[in-house]
Amino acid sequence: VGDDAALVEPGHGAVLLTTDLLVEGVHFELSMAPRDLGYKALVANISDVAAMAGSPRYALVSTVLSEAVGPPWVIELYGGMLEACKEHACAIVGGDLSRGREVVVSVTITGEVSHRDVVSRTGARPGDRIVVTGWLGGAAGGLALGRAGDDVVRRAAGTDWERELSLALDRPVARVGEGQTLAQCGATAMMDVSDGLALDLTRLCAASSVGARVRLDDVPVHPALRHLAGMLPGHDPLELALSGGEDYELLATIPEDRVTEAMELLNGRYGTRLHGIGEVAATQEVVAVGADGAERPLEPKGWDHFA
Amino acid sequence: VGDDAALVEPGHGAVLLTTDLLVEGVHFELSMAPRDLGYKALVANISDVAAMAGSPRYALVSTVLSEAVGPPWVIELYGGMLEACKEHACAIVGGDLSRGREVVVSVTITGEVSHRDVVSRTGARPGDRIVVTGWLGGAAGGLALGRAGDDVVRRAAGTDWERELSLALDRPVARVGEGQTLAQCGATAMMDVSDGLALDLTRLCAASSVGARVRLDDVPVHPALRHLAGMLPGHDPLELALSGGEDYELLATIPEDRVTEAMELLNGRYGTRLHGIGEVAATQEVVAVGADGAERPLEPKGWDHFA
Repeated sequence: VGDDAALVEPGHGAVLLTTDLLVEGVHFELSMAPRDLGYKALVANISDVAAMAGSPRYALVSTVLSEAVGPPWVIELYGGMLEACKEHACAIVGGDLSRGREVVVSVTITGEVSHRDVVSRTGARPGDRIVVTGWLGGAAGGLALGRAGDDVVRRAAGTDWERELSLALDRPVARVGEGQTLAQCGATAMMDVSDGLALDLTRLCAASSVGARVRLDDVPVHPALRHLAGMLPGHDPLELALSGGEDYELLATIPEDRVTEAMELLNGRYGTRLHGIGEVAATQEVVAVGADGAERPLEPKGWDHFA
Repeated sequence: VGDDAALVEPGHGAVLLTTDLLVEGVHFELSMAPRDLGYKALVANISDVAAMAGSPRYALVSTVLSEAVGPPWVIELYGGMLEACKEHACAIVGGDLSRGREVVVSVTITGEVSHRDVVSRTGARPGDRIVVTGWLGGAAGGLALGRAGDDVVRRAAGTDWERELSLALDRPVARVGEGQTLAQCGATAMMDVSDGLALDLTRLCAASSVGARVRLDDVPVHPALRHLAGMLPGHDPLELALSGGEDYELLATIPEDRVTEAMELLNGRYGTRLHGIGEVAATQEVVAVGADGAERPLEPKGWDHFA
C-alpha cells in the first residue's frame, strides 16, 4: 500500500480471483455493527475461495463512505476485516476510498489452489451424494429475529439460541479447511451456500447438467430455529434452511464410497458436521422428497439481489 | 465466471494487484458516455500496473446500478471495458452486480512483472532526472470545456483542439510499454500522474525521502490548452498541467546518463515523447523554478477525493 499497485508473490498452484459488493440498504443496514460488517465482507469472499478448494492469500478493499459514517465507523469496519484476515492468514494489500451518498464495500480476494485439488460447479455425476457442511438457515433466523417486534427481542435476549442465530448472521464461518478436505475426498462439484440451498443447488445442478433428489428430512436445519419458530409463527425452520441466504456453508457432490471418510475427516479435523442430503440424478430436475415419500419440485427460491 | 471464483494461471514473475473506485457525482457524471466510463475505469487500473512496470492480466469488475441506468447503459459500460482490455491483452474474469441509489464502478486488476524490472515510488536518488511521458493537463482541459457555457462549446465544436482535449479526458492512454521500457532504462522510481503532477510528484518525493526541482518551462503543457485559454480566460495552461488530474501519464526518475536512451526508445517504440522536467534533490523540498530563475515551493494541489 502506497505504490500504484501492490506487489505480491505468486503461489505454487493456480490463482483464484473473486469479488463481492456489499451495498447499504441492499446487503446490510447501517445499524449493523461495522466490525461485523467488515468481518462478513471478508468471509463472503474467503468462502468463495474455500468453495473452489483454495486458500485465501491477498485482499483488496474499496469503500464508499457516506456522510452518515465517520472515522470510528471506518476503523471498526477495517478492524473486522483484519480479524477475518488474521483467522485465514490473508493480507489486505490495497484498496481505494471515496465519498458517496451511500456506503458500499467492495472486496476482492486472491486465493491459491493446486491444479489437482480445484473443484468447480460442473463435475457432479449421477449417483454422487449431495453433502452440506454445518447447519442451514441460522443467518436467516438471525435476520428474522433482528426484524422482530420488541416483545420477541426482549424474550429472546440472553438465550443460547438467540446468541447462536445472531452469531450465524454476524459471524459466519468460511469453510476453508473443509473445502480442501472435501476436494481430497474426491468432491466432484462444490460451491458455497450464499443465496440459500434451494437456489444454490439448482445452480450447481444446472452447471453440471444434472438433477438432484433432496430428502427434506435430511436437510440440516439449524437447531436454534425451532425456538425462533415457537416465538415467530410463520417462520418455518425448513423453509429458512432451504431459502435463507448467507450461511456460507459448503455444498458439494461426492462419490458415495468417499462420504464416510469425508464425514470423519471433517469432524476430526474441524469439528464440522457433514450432512448427506440426497443424490445427484441423471434427469435435469431438482426434486424434494418429503417424509411421506412424496416428491415435489424444489423451488429455486432464495436471495436475489435484483428481486 | 460462473464458479465461486475465477481460476487463472499465475505468471512467471511477481503479481501486481490494484483497485479503483469510480463513484457517480464524485468521479463521473451519468451524462458521460458509458462506453467512455468503462474504458476509463479499466485504463485507470491498467495505468497503475504500468506505473510499476508490469503488464495487466486479469480484471474483476463490480458495478452498483441505480434506477437511472438500464441494460443498454450497462452493455455500453462493459463494451468500453472490453475495448480497453482488448488493447492490453487483459481478460475480465469475474465481478459482481448490485442495485443501489447511485452508480459505483469498482475495478480490480492483476498484473505480472519480473522481479528485476519492478519499479516502486521509493527509489528516487538525488541527481536523478525527473521525466514525464506525453502531455499534461489535457484531461483537465477537456473537463473545463465540458463545463463551459454553450457559446464556448459551440465555438470549440469541430476544432482539432476540442477533439484532442475530449480524447484526453474520455480516452486516456495507459502507458504499459512505456513503463516497462523506463524500467529497462533504469528508472529508480515511477508512478502514474492520476491526481496532477504537483501532487503526485510530491508523493513520489515523500515516498523516496527526497526533494525535487521542477523547471516550469519544461513542464509538457498539452498544446491544445492554449486554444482553451484563449476562449476561457482564467484557465491557465500551466496551472491545468500542474494540478489537473486523470492524465495517466507516467512520472519517473531516471539516472541522468540513461535519459537520452529512454527518450529515443519511447519515441521509437511507441511514438511517445518523454519530457525531462527537472532533477531529484537531496533536500526534502519540492521547488518550482520559473523562467526568470526564481524559485517557489511547488504547491501539492490536485485531485483530492475527500476535498
